[in-house]
Amino acid sequence: MAENDESEIIEHHDDEEMEKRRTQRNHFHSFLESVSSSETNGHSSTQSSHRLLAYSDALISIIATVMILPVAHTKFQDNEELKQSIQALLTTKVAVYLMTFLIVTVAWAAHIRLFQVIVRIDDNLALLNLACMMLITFLPYTFSLMATFPNYILGILLFCACVMVIGLIQCLIVLYGFSRPFLLNDQIQMSENQAYYKQHILKVIMKVPIMCLFASIFSVIFFQLSYVILAIVIFLPYISGCLKWIWNKAIGGQVEDSPDSVLFYTYQLSEPLSKERVEAFSDGVYAIVATLLILDICEDNVPDPSVVKREFNNSLVTALQQYGPEYLAYFGSFATVGLLWFVHHSLFLHVIKANRLMGLFNTFSLAFVGGLPLAYQLTHEFPRGSRNELEAVQISCVIIFFAGLFQLAMWVVALFTERETLHPYVRYGGREHTFMLAKLSLYPCVALGTFFLTCILSRFSAPIFHMMEIGVPFAFLLLRLLVRVALALLRWLFCSARNDLDNVPVVEEDSQLPIVDVVT
Amino acid sequence: MAENDESEIIEHHDDEEMEKRRTQRNHFHSFLESVSSSETNGHSSTQSSHRLLAYSDALISIIATVMILPVAHTKFQDNEELKQSIQALLTTKVAVYLMTFLIVTVAWAAHIRLFQVIVRIDDNLALLNLACMMLITFLPYTFSLMATFPNYILGILLFCACVMVIGLIQCLIVLYGFSRPFLLNDQIQMSENQAYYKQHILKVIMKVPIMCLFASIFSVIFFQLSYVILAIVIFLPYISGCLKWIWNKAIGGQVEDSPDSVLFYTYQLSEPLSKERVEAFSDGVYAIVATLLILDICEDNVPDPSVVKREFNNSLVTALQQYGPEYLAYFGSFATVGLLWFVHHSLFLHVIKANRLMGLFNTFSLAFVGGLPLAYQLTHEFPRGSRNELEAVQISCVIIFFAGLFQLAMWVVALFTERETLHPYVRYGGREHTFMLAKLSLYPCVALGTFFLTCILSRFSAPIFHMMEIGVPFAFLLLRLLVRVALALLRWLFCSARNDLDNVPVVEEDSQLPIVDVVT
Repeated sequence: MAENDESEIIEHHDDEEMEKRRTQRNHFHSFLESVSSSETNGHSSTQSSHRLLAYSDALISIIATVMILPVAHTKFQDNEELKQSIQALLTTKVAVYLMTFLIVTVAWAAHIRLFQVIVRIDDNLALLNLACMMLITFLPYTFSLMATFPNYILGILLFCACVMVIGLIQCLIVLYGFSRPFLLNDQIQMSENQAYYKQHILKVIMKVPIMCLFASIFSVIFFQLSYVILAIVIFLPYISGCLKWIWNKAIGGQVEDSPDSVLFYTYQLSEPLSKERVEAFSDGVYAIVATLLILDICEDNVPDPSVVKREFNNSLVTALQQYGPEYLAYFGSFATVGLLWFVHHSLFLHVIKANRLMGLFNTFSLAFVGGLPLAYQLTHEFPRGSRNELEAVQISCVIIFFAGLFQLAMWVVALFTERETLHPYVRYGGREHTFMLAKLSLYPCVALGTFFLTCILSRFSAPIFHMMEIGVPFAFLLLRLLVRVALALLRWLFCSARNDLDNVPVVEEDSQLPIVDVVT
Repeated sequence: MAENDESEIIEHHDDEEMEKRRTQRNHFHSFLESVSSSETNGHSSTQSSHRLLAYSDALISIIATVMILPVAHTKFQDNEELKQSIQALLTTKVAVYLMTFLIVTVAWAAHIRLFQVIVRIDDNLALLNLACMMLITFLPYTFSLMATFPNYILGILLFCACVMVIGLIQCLIVLYGFSRPFLLNDQIQMSENQAYYKQHILKVIMKVPIMCLFASIFSVIFFQLSYVILAIVIFLPYISGCLKWIWNKAIGGQVEDSPDSVLFYTYQLSEPLSKERVEAFSDGVYAIVATLLILDICEDNVPDPSVVKREFNNSLVTALQQYGPEYLAYFGSFATVGLLWFVHHSLFLHVIKANRLMGLFNTFSLAFVGGLPLAYQLTHEFPRGSRNELEAVQISCVIIFFAGLFQLAMWVVALFTERETLHPYVRYGGREHTFMLAKLSLYPCVALGTFFLTCILSRFSAPIFHMMEIGVPFAFLLLRLLVRVALALLRWLFCSARNDLDNVPVVEEDSQLPIVDVVT
């Protein structure tokens, strides 16, 4: 409940007091009065938006990861070389998955922005938001229509229609919010130029639907152009933001902006992103991905009793043995996803404030995480020692590597503005700095090591991969010990070096570099 | 981060100060020192458990709803009567779904209890919890093995093995927690008889694994008995709790308990249940259920380009028209689930504290919600006007009715102890009381009305159902207005009655009953 709750309760008691005095203990009358008096008071049903946002995050994270299912359910023929099927797969399904993931996260980012402006809700806003969610969850389908039938305009028209309606609903939400200012962010509520904010926000929101309107009109005339328009609409702000940020980092200049619009609806990469919502969204994706394989197992891997009787001589254990690789794949992918979640969780425990660039890297990391179950299933599907198996193992390693690398990238981005974004413990020289670095770099290093090891010892790729799977959880358990040993070793080396070269401070500066500079 | 954070930061600065003084701006040395000093300090990596619990809730809610997928994917033959296929379906798949849902929620309730005792975590606990989650997510599979092969002991052995390992991990977590008391609940941390608590909690936790050990031993000798043991282990505490509660309500006596064990690990139905976790779990279930149909649509309802060319004369729109009912089912079930979530959200906004009986009714409500997409898909699958269609519509109505009814039941339970559990607004005579009652009873009433209407006008069952689907969202939008009109009408009736019978207070008492007594 919002903070104006308490005053309302007091007010409500006042109402009752007066009522009581007037009607002299006429309970029924005062009951009716007190209920209907809530109508005259606009604030009556104001609510905290926390749970609405958590539910929206859950919905969006499910939708973002849905499109991996068609990829995962693609069956490979054993006699076919993996490379060919991978090629066919990459061109359509993986592309659809990645594009859907990006588009849905763009919609999610817009949703975050909207509810950073409107921080309290009431029943009407909750219902409007549900309508908005319904259309967002429909986006992946329109997109997969577009990808399967690139020459038909139906997909693009449906997509544009959805985006336009979503835009209109968001405008409605903004207009509703500004008509009841107590729903707004405190900063805007206090501000004198609310009208300016309103116009600015509406302008930013309406940009996308209007471009989509043009795209849908063009699609009738010359549909290739409408794809270009859509790509521009959706990704240009991010690309231009990225370029601007790199430019500014290279030149060292500061971005100038009108002071009023700095915080909301800018396309700056340093625009704050609600940390809670990034966490909730990531939790949703990790949870879905971790359970993707058990969904399949529960549905497909319970043999038919008649089959067991006929083919396996009534022995259930023998019948289930054929599914052995799938159980392995499930436990392997659950553990890997769980540990990646653990790393993410450790990182965000020490993040005070997230920004949009971190959000972007988080999205990339999650997009790779989504591919993990598929990779694990592949790994266990091919006959031992085959070329296919080696390639499947290597694909798994590459996916794990990138998922971990983008997590590391988030930390590096956070370190650039560590005073605002990080807890003192994990800043340069903080007591947990090295430990965090070790945690974040464990998976990329292990994945890279496994990859090169399988290149050299290609015949033992599967055993190496299994060793990695089993070893990594223990590595995490012992990580603190390992880091302590490594640091003790370094300190011992350093101290003996210092005893020798006590008056040469330059060496100290150099020896500091290998640890601290790795992350920059 | 936990509340002892601030003191740690100060401590950390002290460390640094001393370090600086000693080594005189030797940065590298102080960096190494500050990192390794965290090793000597046991509290260093203490974390808030909030996100771990949110992730666990997401995982468990997904797993709880998974087993509806095999039910939903059952295909009905058109020429077969629905009643027969329903019978075959009910006996296995629906039973598996419901039992899995209950078992998983039992595991979830145990998880809540555990983390009401251990309120702070560190890395080791997070990893132990992930291991525990991995086994919980495997439970539905063992259970569906048990249901499909009731005469084989493999399913029951696997299930018992999982439960025993989960129990052992929970014991490990408790032992670890009590060895580091700063991780514990403040109340236990302050308490003088920590040893008693530890023993009590371990005793309660170990009860289930030990019974499972017996069950697995008996399964080798006489496996029917082990099913009985399992049923007793899992459901007896709930049933006996229910009976005890009803007994106490009927007799009016108070439950006597040792004062120490009142709050944790009792089997009282009034034992508090973390409200946040009930919300998080419910959000997860609602979100999965709302998107279940779009998962299928994205995977199955994109026609093959070659088929469109061959069979539909290159017209994509015609090709997609055959899927029309499935889109309708998706939007219909999304809207219904969304609105049921909305009612749940409104209720829990006004709940201050949840207890176990409310949690039980919530579970029942969610179990019915999980069946909704299936019911909706059925409704749109059969030819218009057929007997099957009528029955499918009626099944949908029954499911909606019970999902809504158990939500209402939660409120009724909360009203019994309204001083502890409810916000003043929605208590008897509160200003939102009538409105909340209207919100909660809208779906049961509408579902009941639709059911009886379809009984009478059986030929128009589908149109009536569609009208209901379209009408309900608007009813929610206008509900406040409707309630106001109804109350004004009542008040007008009442006032004119009072003017006539100004000196007969008994009538007032009577006229109060119809509104307030409905909920008791």
